[in-house]
Amino acid sequence: MNQAGRRRVAIQGERGSFSEEAAIRLLGEEIEIVPRATFEGMFSAVGERAADCALAPIENSLAGSVHRSFDLLEEHALSIVGEVIIPIAHNLIGAPGATLQQIRVVESHPVALAQCERFFIEHPGLKRIATEDTAGSVRRVVEAGDASRAAIASRRAAELYGGAILQEHLEDSSENYTRFLLLSASCEPARAADKLSIVFQTAHLPGALHRALEPFARRDINMLKIESRPVHGRPWEYRFYLDLEISASDPVAVAALEELRRHSVNLRILGSYPSAEILRARKSCGL
Amino acid sequence: MNQAGRRRVAIQGERGSFSEEAAIRLLGEEIEIVPRATFEGMFSAVGERAADCALAPIENSLAGSVHRSFDLLEEHALSIVGEVIIPIAHNLIGAPGATLQQIRVVESHPVALAQCERFFIEHPGLKRIATEDTAGSVRRVVEAGDASRAAIASRRAAELYGGAILQEHLEDSSENYTRFLLLSASCEPARAADKLSIVFQTAHLPGALHRALEPFARRDINMLKIESRPVHGRPWEYRFYLDLEISASDPVAVAALEELRRHSVNLRILGSYPSAEILRARKSCGL
Repeated sequence: MNQAGRRRVAIQGERGSFSEEAAIRLLGEEIEIVPRATFEGMFSAVGERAADCALAPIENSLAGSVHRSFDLLEEHALSIVGEVIIPIAHNLIGAPGATLQQIRVVESHPVALAQCERFFIEHPGLKRIATEDTAGSVRRVVEAGDASRAAIASRRAAELYGGAILQEHLEDSSENYTRFLLLSASCEPARAADKLSIVFQTAHLPGALHRALEPFARRDINMLKIESRPVHGRPWEYRFYLDLEISASDPVAVAALEELRRHSVNLRILGSYPSAEILRARKSCGL
Repeated sequence: MNQAGRRRVAIQGERGSFSEEAAIRLLGEEIEIVPRATFEGMFSAVGERAADCALAPIENSLAGSVHRSFDLLEEHALSIVGEVIIPIAHNLIGAPGATLQQIRVVESHPVALAQCERFFIEHPGLKRIATEDTAGSVRRVVEAGDASRAAIASRRAAELYGGAILQEHLEDSSENYTRFLLLSASCEPARAADKLSIVFQTAHLPGALHRALEPFARRDINMLKIESRPVHGRPWEYRFYLDLEISASDPVAVAALEELRRHSVNLRILGSYPSAEILRARKSCGL
């Protein structure tokens, strides 16, 4: 907590980012945003006690998983204590007075650029520059006052930094949502948890993943997501991240995890928390 | 084939790229490289008969799956007819006369940038610019003659375009390999195939993925990789890509696939082909 008793939430990016919007949606306006330039910096802020928690984008409904967040979940000893889903609408934002015809360069976060493929196919002359965040790109474009540069970001960022919206709804699909994980150094189980996230490796044997999923399938535990990431230094071996629709404190989950431990390597419970759907219905999870 | 009877191979990127190196490793020097600026262009070149086949990067042992290739595999009706793995060594390449101290901006393909995380943590002042390819970045840096710009690419690209190598081995790990898929419009099964790639969706039910893997696990068919990608327009539903260690013509595989068809939606065989390990041993697969 900061001196005013507000929870300090580390995000990757600046004020006006989708992460800030997600943090307010999840935790309310009474928080202090701790902006960090990189994902690494956002995760480290919690360990260094510069923040009480971090809010990391983990998955977008169009671009897919945010690999950097998955890898950092493995590298840092933080627990998932909540999640939130927000709709993503992208705008092309230039310096005041700029027009779409003048734009030559478009700057934004790589995930945002990837979500606007159709726009770039329609405008093949535009050069894409990957930056660390969406909102910071708007700030830099407005500060430079260069009519040939634009950023892709939220309406909130345009308003905050005084940018001009040159085109709305650049996103390829209206079904564009990003899911964020709330991460904390404490692993206290959240109240009303109905979701469980784990990570493990399997032996390099036929049927190993199938055997690892069996303890959940046999108990009718719904698997919401599976993600594989390479194990560094062991080419073509993978870590698996699973999201399951159950609380870690449910005896059925306890039994399934005990069974999985026998069929896997380096099993770690990443967290048990209320799913975003419940949060939306209850407005606040009481975290 | 071109007029000289050479096979035309579409790649994403320019001459001097890792893709060109992989194409020569797989098919020999007697090919014609068809460079394309984008992944989309590389896949389309085969359908438009501008190339006989395409060689697409699909996975790197550090950065993980190349999502754009997975998505384009789904969108285009090409078959996988081969694969090749090459080691990746990254170099910081500047214009002739440039020094490391002068560099402010580093340009390269996002996957190459992601493979050099440690270098960027050690040099936090460097701005990263994502470009469409590694080799083209070297060409542009050398053409610009700007001592503040550098590219990350292969030694081959530095030699081809006359760039100066400012630092070698920027890659985070020496276990850095990229796997490429050879894609063709014809779906003739390759001789000596020992690998099978498929894609499917499952019903949104508990245990659905476990049930989909069962036909392979029960038959002791080794699963080499599983990748999930979002289904556009249906947030939080996924397509699954599987690599299996068996030939599609093996009766055991035929039976397993028939069983999977009953437990999945939109099952498609992407190809059956000789794995890269066999290629390395036999030098040429006779494709």
